[in-house]
Parts: sequence; structure tokens; C-alpha cells
Amino acid sequence: MEKKIYTPGILQYIPFFYVIWSDDLVSASEVNVVERAIEKDTSLSDMEKVLLNSWLQVKNPPKNEEFKNWKQTISNSGIKLLEGETYPLTTFSQKVVCHYHETCPFNEHLKNIEVNLGIQPNHYNHLFEVEVEHIASANTYVAEELSVILKGKHAQVIDRFQEFIQHSLFDWDVHRQKEDFREVVLEQVKFLAENGYGAMAYPSAYGGTGDMEGYATIFENLMYVDGSLTIKFGVQFGLFGGSIQKLGTKYHHDTYLTDAGKATLLGCFAMTETGHGSNVRGIKTTATYRKEDDSLIINTPGENDNKEYIGNALHSKIASVFAQLIVDGKNEGVHAILVPLRNEKHELLPGIRIEDNGYKLGLNGVDNGKIWFNQVKVPRENLLNKYGKITDDGVYYSEIENPNKRFFTMLGTLVGGRICVARAGLGGAKMALTIAVKHALKRRQFNDSIKIQEDLLMDYPTHQLRLTPLVASAYVYNATLDKMMEIYCDESQPDKRKVETQVAGLKSIITWYANTTIQECREACGGKGYLLENRIADLKGDVDIFTTFEGDNNVLLQLAAKGVLSDFKSEFNSAGFSSVLKLLSQQLSDKLATVNPIYSNKVDTEHLYNPKFHKHAFDYRTRRLTYTLAMRIRDYIKKGVPSYQAFLKVQTHLLALGKAYSIELAYNTYLQFTENIQDEKHRALFQKLGTLFALYEIRKDASWYLEQGYIGGTKSKAIRQRVERLCTELRPHIHVLVDGFGIPDNCLTAPIAN
Amino acid sequence: MEKKIYTPGILQYIPFFYVIWSDDLVSASEVNVVERAIEKDTSLSDMEKVLLNSWLQVKNPPKNEEFKNWKQTISNSGIKLLEGETYPLTTFSQKVVCHYHETCPFNEHLKNIEVNLGIQPNHYNHLFEVEVEHIASANTYVAEELSVILKGKHAQVIDRFQEFIQHSLFDWDVHRQKEDFREVVLEQVKFLAENGYGAMAYPSAYGGTGDMEGYATIFENLMYVDGSLTIKFGVQFGLFGGSIQKLGTKYHHDTYLTDAGKATLLGCFAMTETGHGSNVRGIKTTATYRKEDDSLIINTPGENDNKEYIGNALHSKIASVFAQLIVDGKNEGVHAILVPLRNEKHELLPGIRIEDNGYKLGLNGVDNGKIWFNQVKVPRENLLNKYGKITDDGVYYSEIENPNKRFFTMLGTLVGGRICVARAGLGGAKMALTIAVKHALKRRQFNDSIKIQEDLLMDYPTHQLRLTPLVASAYVYNATLDKMMEIYCDESQPDKRKVETQVAGLKSIITWYANTTIQECREACGGKGYLLENRIADLKGDVDIFTTFEGDNNVLLQLAAKGVLSDFKSEFNSAGFSSVLKLLSQQLSDKLATVNPIYSNKVDTEHLYNPKFHKHAFDYRTRRLTYTLAMRIRDYIKKGVPSYQAFLKVQTHLLALGKAYSIELAYNTYLQFTENIQDEKHRALFQKLGTLFALYEIRKDASWYLEQGYIGGTKSKAIRQRVERLCTELRPHIHVLVDGFGIPDNCLTAPIAN
Repeated sequence: MEKKIYTPGILQYIPFFYVIWSDDLVSASEVNVVERAIEKDTSLSDMEKVLLNSWLQVKNPPKNEEFKNWKQTISNSGIKLLEGETYPLTTFSQKVVCHYHETCPFNEHLKNIEVNLGIQPNHYNHLFEVEVEHIASANTYVAEELSVILKGKHAQVIDRFQEFIQHSLFDWDVHRQKEDFREVVLEQVKFLAENGYGAMAYPSAYGGTGDMEGYATIFENLMYVDGSLTIKFGVQFGLFGGSIQKLGTKYHHDTYLTDAGKATLLGCFAMTETGHGSNVRGIKTTATYRKEDDSLIINTPGENDNKEYIGNALHSKIASVFAQLIVDGKNEGVHAILVPLRNEKHELLPGIRIEDNGYKLGLNGVDNGKIWFNQVKVPRENLLNKYGKITDDGVYYSEIENPNKRFFTMLGTLVGGRICVARAGLGGAKMALTIAVKHALKRRQFNDSIKIQEDLLMDYPTHQLRLTPLVASAYVYNATLDKMMEIYCDESQPDKRKVETQVAGLKSIITWYANTTIQECREACGGKGYLLENRIADLKGDVDIFTTFEGDNNVLLQLAAKGVLSDFKSEFNSAGFSSVLKLLSQQLSDKLATVNPIYSNKVDTEHLYNPKFHKHAFDYRTRRLTYTLAMRIRDYIKKGVPSYQAFLKVQTHLLALGKAYSIELAYNTYLQFTENIQDEKHRALFQKLGTLFALYEIRKDASWYLEQGYIGGTKSKAIRQRVERLCTELRPHIHVLVDGFGIPDNCLTAPIAN
Repeated sequence: MEKKIYTPGILQYIPFFYVIWSDDLVSASEVNVVERAIEKDTSLSDMEKVLLNSWLQVKNPPKNEEFKNWKQTISNSGIKLLEGETYPLTTFSQKVVCHYHETCPFNEHLKNIEVNLGIQPNHYNHLFEVEVEHIASANTYVAEELSVILKGKHAQVIDRFQEFIQHSLFDWDVHRQKEDFREVVLEQVKFLAENGYGAMAYPSAYGGTGDMEGYATIFENLMYVDGSLTIKFGVQFGLFGGSIQKLGTKYHHDTYLTDAGKATLLGCFAMTETGHGSNVRGIKTTATYRKEDDSLIINTPGENDNKEYIGNALHSKIASVFAQLIVDGKNEGVHAILVPLRNEKHELLPGIRIEDNGYKLGLNGVDNGKIWFNQVKVPRENLLNKYGKITDDGVYYSEIENPNKRFFTMLGTLVGGRICVARAGLGGAKMALTIAVKHALKRRQFNDSIKIQEDLLMDYPTHQLRLTPLVASAYVYNATLDKMMEIYCDESQPDKRKVETQVAGLKSIITWYANTTIQECREACGGKGYLLENRIADLKGDVDIFTTFEGDNNVLLQLAAKGVLSDFKSEFNSAGFSSVLKLLSQQLSDKLATVNPIYSNKVDTEHLYNPKFHKHAFDYRTRRLTYTLAMRIRDYIKKGVPSYQAFLKVQTHLLALGKAYSIELAYNTYLQFTENIQDEKHRALFQKLGTLFALYEIRKDASWYLEQGYIGGTKSKAIRQRVERLCTELRPHIHVLVDGFGIPDNCLTAPIAN
């Protein structure tokens, strides 16, 4: 067969054309990029331009024969593909031209095609029959720089803490016996306290720096050491100490807070009861005020009304006990009271019974226990009385008259804890992802021949698809949780109801995300992921319960959804409700006006990658779900169904709204965050992660969007393909992306990650 | 306000109308059922019929005022709703009529409405303001009878085995130290062997009963005792013993099989290597034939080429080692060789190195280890030589000339093991479901008032939705795996390739299902599910790895998909492939002919509940995915992309096809199974479970069906609603359904299940 010789002008484009036509994704916008490059390329003659353009007809693609000619021309050049080049395809093309012709300048127009189409070596390195010099990772970005962006204003706190946890006391080890494990964790907690980390969020008068935001970031970092440590730390300083700080007044602060922060006074947070998991308002423990000796009598009425799953229960000297406060025969609702549990010899005080909860799926370094109170007497001042007190005359008084509002105000102080739990889950997910990605960049498997080197696991499309969106999500949630904590800590915004709704939703989706991620990483590491030494197994066991504690996710999502509804000031009576519906309907039709057949089948890259599309899609979903939910509830109520039952009937709808709202919130928060990134190079990468997150999430709920007619079948498929494509595009940077999480080397003990 | 009095004829229908219009799901077919009943009801006057029919206009529903009248009439009657009645709504209606009028006969037409619409007390018990006498479960079905149907022909084997495992040696306990745990499990394995269960699948000459199918069912039952026991049992008798039985010849059977079955010879199955997890063909261990002393030299070439994760490695005396067999300098491919590991004193033999794999996420009662061989010599007869032997002249000979085919024939013997792993996963899922459902039938949570009794967890729609489809799936997979094992064991069908493909897919979807289910149950039980004593935690840790061992699920699904493709006799050359495509295209257009706008928006109950619809939907999906996959591969190959790379590019497509094919297979197998159930009452229940499974699976992939235009938005929503509705309809039977799994009481030690 005669070898077809191309002119240098044509030849330089051939590797690009070959790649573009080999791929699944020659879209109109991609053709545009190439057309524009050709038009501007002054090195080409008009004839050459005509020929090149003739090969760009999507409806009339080049013939297979032409295609084979291209391939042969490239192969015959014998040029080696170097993946490590800055512009590998452009450089490769240049060299091919050099082989056949005398001159071969570097062509900026080709470089632009390579950059704008996001063509990566792993798109094409198998297409030419040429020798390839592989690289596992590109060096476009530096992990340290990504990490600095993620850490933001907390960089100093985090850096200092990461240095601190290099102490050998934090070395990872297997602890199978709960007693031993608990001792180790207790030592670690005390050591952290001695170094000021316990009191961090407390005012400086009590040994702290008042840095609740910084506290949240170190909380996440603790996960890199151990899950049990993280939780025990959170119980002692966040829940127990936090209840004194937030629900107590000066007397309590002065008496207890410094010792709590130093861990010289160990305490627990006794809220949940066996019989009433998520229903705090229904707890049965009572605290009855006895006027004759100005005391409170704490009592567990039934065997099943004990405090359940209380962390630190076996080590504690004292507990913040949540109980129905009864004053002068009247139940004033749930309040917290400090109840001593043990004496200095660590013997149980009279009337207190505590049992070990025993072994758990994870967190066996945390001493969870059950607590019963049998008519235990404590002085009146032990009532944490910021929101409700008993006066010297023995009369109950609260500035918040509505008992409902009072209850939720007290519970609102738990919101910080929920952010921390989400952060800890995120930390677990980051750790698992780092291990799984590093493993996938070393591990080779299969190939078409046993003679040549097997492929890296990370080069499998399925592997990219299973890990990359999860890495992108970690970036999104990181920025979101930072922002949430900032808002929560903003003293100028005293009304925390909105942030409560938001945190309820975010805690749910992020802890679920963390579990899914860790599981995916376990499977992605195969049997190796199952070994304790590789750390993912422990993460799995520990993080699992995050979906349940500090508020069961399903309950919290319903809370979030109800918050969204009440954002529209709905009181579910017909008058107020009608106006809500009218408002919702109006907003929705404004939105819908933009959704037409052209929009719902718009599949070009500019559109699909445009944050405006993502924002619109998320906003539409939240509004639509809110509207239809409100309509359904109204219909039930009109028919006389009691409101509680009506909400029960729409439970799955509530969950869907709670999720939709939270995803939207996360994406919008992240988008704002990326807009503040100064240099363009990094902003581009962070925004690409945001795009992947958005399309991945829209894709996950594609059936809903399709049902609504918001997207058509073609667009749905295009989104799926874009998700895959983005994963491939991010493949060269995946190593830097996980290193950018900034997990200290000494915590990455997993042999498969080294 | 004047109370409106209705005639007895009208009045008896009012509770029904009230319920029907209160519900979300008044579909055309539901209206039909009522219309027909009214038409046939001779107790009604023509006038009454007209009035009743006027209240049945979907487009013009009864006014709210009418609705409130109904409600008031019912409430004023003061009649108590007894959920325990056989036809609670009909009986309730009858009593309401009695209250206002003199006569009130039981009306068969109303009964028919109640039955045909599947109206359950939990649809309406909150709607009337009347006193309700709740029941947790209906007694329509008896668990024992469901269990008998599930057990089928294996009833006797299972019953005897369940009695056997009541022995105190099988009592559940916490074992944290792997050494102790392994000893306990070893004792249990030996005890099972002494009682004939180890050899069960072997021929009677070697102590067995040749009952491989029965073996699989007891394998599942072992999960109720402990996961580690199940796996160690499988390693010793299934993998080690099985390799001798299936890959060896008479000499090996006579020498080893009886002892293997009695567990007097402990052995392991050394296939996987650290460097080559799923790529068995690429293993590096060599077995080189040395003619001078007629021996085989087993060797691990590199430090990373050790046998990895080998169960029973610390207790074994001998191993079935998979190695590249080299005879006269030629590599004859992977073969298995029996290699002694330890002497009678349990000391390692020269050249053998074994290391403990250490702690794992679960299965810590199984002694997994790594094994290295340093030029270990064994006699030639240790080669398991059924499919390839070395003759006395030192020449390699196999009846299967094609090395590829030989390799896959040997691996085919693993198929039985994969069925068993899926069964074990299913056992774990059943156990978790039983615990979670029993818990949900005791546990109460929240209500509109703290004064009245809180609702049962199982009465929450979200709870029904999260557990019921998983219960239905367990029934489907149970019947499917029974059938698969029957086919696998059918000696009259020597060609096992088809069943291999099928089992590869089923093992994947069922072990994933098991993990999802156990996780859902953990969360459904809240913090209680996290405690080891409640068993779900261990199940989670143990079953997790099922997705990886005996073939990684992702790898197996691709195997299944390739099997589907090659069912169409495709050799991926253009000639053979074109005809495949033509065939596929033809089949697809036959299918498509039935899909038109009317079909894709058909939402009536008859259609959605009709197995013909489910079969069509599953069949369409498999065919469509096969066709588009074949097209894509052809396009790549036409462009000159090497076949290995082409398959890499379509990896996610392969996975989708693998899943689709397996779901279809499971549903069709189950459907056949239900058709053989003799009595109508039970057949109806089993078929309802099948319907829920089918709609739930179609729903899970709704985005795909919508993209294809196979279903429209309305139909997609209707399917979602039907899934919720079926869960509600099955609510009264959920207790009997989990009891029908037939898990022995002595294994249900979880305190929350008691």
C-alpha cells in the first residue's frame, strides 16, 4: 500500500483529529474549538484549511480509510509519546512533523485546542501504536498550594496542630480490648487538654482562645489519628464542656469550665434515653424541685428510661443530665442539670447505676454506658440556668415564655456539635480517599497481554468514576462546613434558626457521603482495604454511627425540610398557607419560564459546565419540591387529616426536599468560595471540581429531573458522559488533589498508601 | 350545624369513599373497582347508585364540605376501629350503619373493594377521629408455611441442620482476640466435620452424600451462627476439599478427600497473590517440572508474588497452590498442585514462609495469611491433574488443547463457591432484616402529643420503604440461588459456561444487595444496631468482603456482560460481528414495536402489577444495553482501537449490562418459582413480593428508562408511588415475612429482636 504523505500543515493536525474522532464525545462545541483554531492558524494555506474543515463534519465524519491512514502515518513516525510534557499532544504532533519534514515549529493554536478541550494523555495514549512513556501524575499543581487554599484562615491553627499530633502518643496501633483502648484514648484526651486544645473554644478566662472555628478544624484533623479519640474529645469538651458554656451561667463557668477544658474534671452529656432515641422532648427522666431543702431530685422512672449510649460514662465524675424539670408540680420542659456521678475514689455515688454498653462496631475506645438515677439529690444551683431558672423563692422563670421556643433554643446549642460531626465524617472520607487513590496509583492489574506492564488501577474508567466525584465532593463540603461554622459563630447574627436548618441537612448528607465514600474506598482497595493496618476498616466502623448520633439523619432531614417550609412563614392554617402557596407558585413559574425544550435538551459543554445551569437546576429542584410538598400538605389538611398525620404521609417527600436543599446549599457556598480564589490557575481547578460535584449530583437525581421534564433524555445522557469525562480530565491531578487534603504523613500509616 | 343523615345504602360506602379520596392514589383502575362493585350491589337503589357514582369523578372530586360531612358522620358514630378484623373497613362500615339505622348486613361488595384495592388499616386508621385498636401484625399468613415454601426440597436437610446448630458449641459470643476466636471457629469446623457436614458435597465413597445443593443451604444457615465459621468452613471443605474433588483424580481423592471432609487434614486454597488480586492468569508463582527426580519445584519469584489472604493458612498442613506450570521449559498455564506446608508437629516445612494477615474489619475468626515458597519440592503426583497432566515420560498432556479454554475450565470449578458466597451474603441480609423488623415492631418513637402512645417505627412510611423492598428481594434471591445451584449440579448439562456467566453476575448483585441491606438495617436500628450484642455490626464487618473475594464484583460483572455478548456468538471481527449486530438490532426493534406513547405512559395498576410489564422492561433493558454496547465496541474496533482498549473504554457500560442481565435473571427465575406454588393464597403473596422487587428495581434505574423514552414522567412517578404503596400493603405481613426466612430462634440472640 502506498503511504499517503501529508503537508506539514495538515500533518500537525492529524494526531488531534485522530484523537477527537476516536473519542465518544465529539460535540458541536468541541468542533467549534478546533474550527476557531484552524481559522486563526496563519501557518495554514487556504487549501489546507478547506481540507481540515472537511474532516470536521459531525454528520459526515472522516471515512475509516482516512482514519487508518492517519494512524499509520503516526505509527510509522516511530515517535515516542512522553506523557510528562507540558503539552504532550502538541509536542508529539510537532515531533511527528519533524520526522517527515524539515521544519516543525511549536504551534500555539494546537496548544489551545489541547488546553480548551481538556485532552489528556489517558484519552489517547493507547490509540497510536507508539511507545508511551507513562507518568502517574501531572505536576501542573502543587499539593501544598491546594492545601493552603483549603485551610484558608485556619492555616496556622491547623499547621500547629498537625505538628503537635506527631507526638508518639498519637501513633496508630491495634487495640482490641476495649479497656486497653479506652485507657489509651483517655491519655490522648488528657494530653490534648494539657496543651490547650480542649478549652480552645472556651473564653480566655477559662483557658481557651474562643476559637470555635479553629476547634472544628482540629476536630477534623483528630480523625486522622483515630475516630475514638475524636469522639471522646468531642464528648468531653464539646458536649459536656459545651453544655456548661452554653446552657450554664457565670457560677457554672467559674466552677466547672476551666477543669472541664483541662480534662481534670471528666464529664458526660446525658441526653438520649433507651426508650426515646430521637425524641428528646419525650424523655422521661425527671428533675423535681424540692422547696424544703432547695434541691433537685433526679430520677429515672422506668427501667427502660435510662440514659443510653452516653460517651465518657465510665470515666466521668459528673454529667450534664437532660430531664423534665418539675417545679411546684408543673412540668417546665426539658432542662440540663449537673449531676455528680462518682466520688474522688471513682466510686459511684448513691442512687447512681452505670452499665457499660459493651463492644460496638467501632469507636471501642469510647466508653459508652447506660445511666440510671434513683432519687438523686443535687442543689438547685446545679441547674444550667441560662434559659430557664428557679428563683430564690422557688419559682420557675424563663425569659423565653414559649416552652417550645425555649426547648429549641437550648437544643440549638447542639448545632456546633453537628457541624463537628460532619467535619469528622469529612475527615474520615478524606483519609479513606487518600489511601485508596495512592493505592490505585501503585497497584497494577490485568492487561491485554501478560508480557507487558499491567495498567494502574487509577487508569480504569470505572475506578476514576468511583473515586473522582467523591474527591470533588470532599472539596465542596470542606468549604461548606468552614462557612457554616463561620456563620454559626458570628455573634452579630443572634438568630440561629436558619443555620440550624442548614446544619441539620448538611450533617445528614455529609455523614452519608462519608459512609458511602469509605465503603467505596474499601471496595476500591479490594482485600487490602479490609485489613486493619490499612486504616479504612476502622474508619468504616467508626464513621458508621455518625449517621445516627447527634441527630438521626432521617430525622434531621425532616427538620431541615420543615425549616425550608417555615422559611416561607407558613403556619399551616388555610389563610397563611394560601399566601405561601401563591408565593411559591409565582417563584416556580418564574423559574419554569426558562425551562423550554431548547433548554431541557441543551447539551453543549459551555452550558453543562456553566455554574448558572447548576444553580438553576438545584434551585428549581428545591422550589419545586417545596411547592409540591406544601400543596400535598394543604390537601390533606383541607380534608381534615391532622397535621401530624399529614406530615407522616409526606415523609419521603420531606426527605427529598431536605436533601435537595442541602446539596444546593453546599454547591452555592462552594461556588462563592471559589470566586474568592485569587489566581486563575487554581480557581479553574477548584471550579472544575465544583462542576463535577454539580453534574454528579444532578446525575444522581436524573430520574427526578427527567420526570419533571427539566432535562430531556439527550441531556441526561450528556450529563452522564460529562461526569465520566471530567473524571478522566482530572485523572492527572488526582494525586495532587488528595495530597491537597493535607493529611499529615505520620497519620498515613497504611502500608498500601506508601 | 345540621347533621346530614345518609341512607343505609349510601352510608355503608362512606368510610370507603372517605379513605379513597384521602389517599394519594385514586387512579382510574381504582375507580373502576368501586364502580363495578356499586353496579353489582343489588342492595342499592338506582338513585343511590347515581349519587355514589357522582362522587367518583376523578376530574371532579367531592367538595371539601361533603368530605367533612362524611368525616363527622363517621366520628359521631363513636364506632371503634378494630384492626384485627378480617375485613376491618367493611366491618367498620357495617357498624357505622348499625349505629344510625336498624339493619346493617355485611356487604360482600364492600369486602371486594377492600380486598381488590388492598386497603389496609394503616392507610386509614388515622383519618377518622375514632378510637383504634391497633395490631402490630396480621395473622393472614403463618411464618412456618412461608418457610416451607422457601426451603422447598431442602426442607429436611435444613431442619436437621438447624436442630444440630442448637448445640452450645455454636452459641454466639464476643471474641476480640483473633487467636481465641480462631480456636473457637476451628473447634466448630471440626465438630461440623465429625457430624458429616464437611463432606456433604463429596461422593459417598469419601464420607459424603453428594448433596452439593443441600451443602449450599446449610452454608447459608451457618451465617446465622457466625460469619467466620461460614468462611472457614467454605475454605476447608469447599475450596480446599473442592479443589481436590474437582481438579484432582482418583489418586488424590483416595489419598486426601476423606481426611479433608473430616477436617483431620486441614488445607488451604492458595490462588490469589499480593501483586495480582483479580488477575489469576497473571500469577507469578511457578511449578517447574524437574525430570531428573520426577518432581515439581514450587517457587515464589519476587517478594510481592506471595500468596495473599489465604484462609486457613495458619492451621493448615497442606495447600492447593495455583502456579504457572512449566514443563520442559514451556509455560503450560495455571495449574493447582498440592504442597505440604507443615509437619505433624505443626512446624513449617523447609522453604515455606507464612505470615499472619493480622486483624481485619471482620472475619477475625478466620486465619488469613500470606505464603511464600522458596524452591519447594513436591512429587509429580501432587499435580491436580484432571485437566492437564505430566505423563510418566515427563511430557505435558491435556485433553483440552486450547490453553485458554483449559484455564477457564479449571476456574469454572469455582462457580459453586460463588453461589455459596452469594448464599452466605443472603443469609446475612436475612438475619439483619429479621432483627431490624422485629425491633421496628417493638420500638416506638415520636407522636403528635407526648401524652398518647408513640408510633411503632414500622408504621413510618420511610421505615416501610427502607426495609420492605429488601425483604422482598431476599425472597427473590433465595429462589434464584436455589435454582442456580440446581442447574450447576445438573450432570446432564456438562457445559457450565452459561451458568458461570449467570453466577458471576448474581454473586455481584447479591453480595452488594447484602451489604446495602445490612447497612440499612444498622441505620434503621439506630445506635442499638451499632452494638455488637445486636449482631448487625458483626454481619456488616463480615459480609463486607464478600463483594471482593471469590472474584471482585466489578470484575465479575464485566465477565457476566462479556458472557452476554458472546451468547450472541460474537467474535469481534467485522464479519461475525455484523451478523451479531443485525440479530440484536432485529430483536430490539421487535421489542420496541410495543413501546409507544400509550405504553410508556400506561399507569393503571393492572399494567404496573403485571409480570408481563416487568419482564418486558427487564428484557428491553438487557437487549438495548447489549446492542448499544456491541455498536460502541464495533465503532472503536473499526477505528483501529485494540480490542482490550475498546473494552476498557466501555467499562461502565459493561457494568450496567452485567447488572441489568442479573436482575432480569433473578426476576424471571423467581417468577417461575412462584408459578409452581400450589395454593393461591401463598402464590398471591409471593407474587406481590416479586412485583415489589420488579418495580423497585425499575425505579432504581428510572433515569435510564426515562432517557430511553421507555417510560414517561407520569409512569415513572406512578411506579414510585406504587413501590410506596406496596410497602404499605405488605406492612401487616412484614413480621410473618421475616419469620418466614426461618432463622432458628437460638441464633436470634440480639436483645433488640426479643
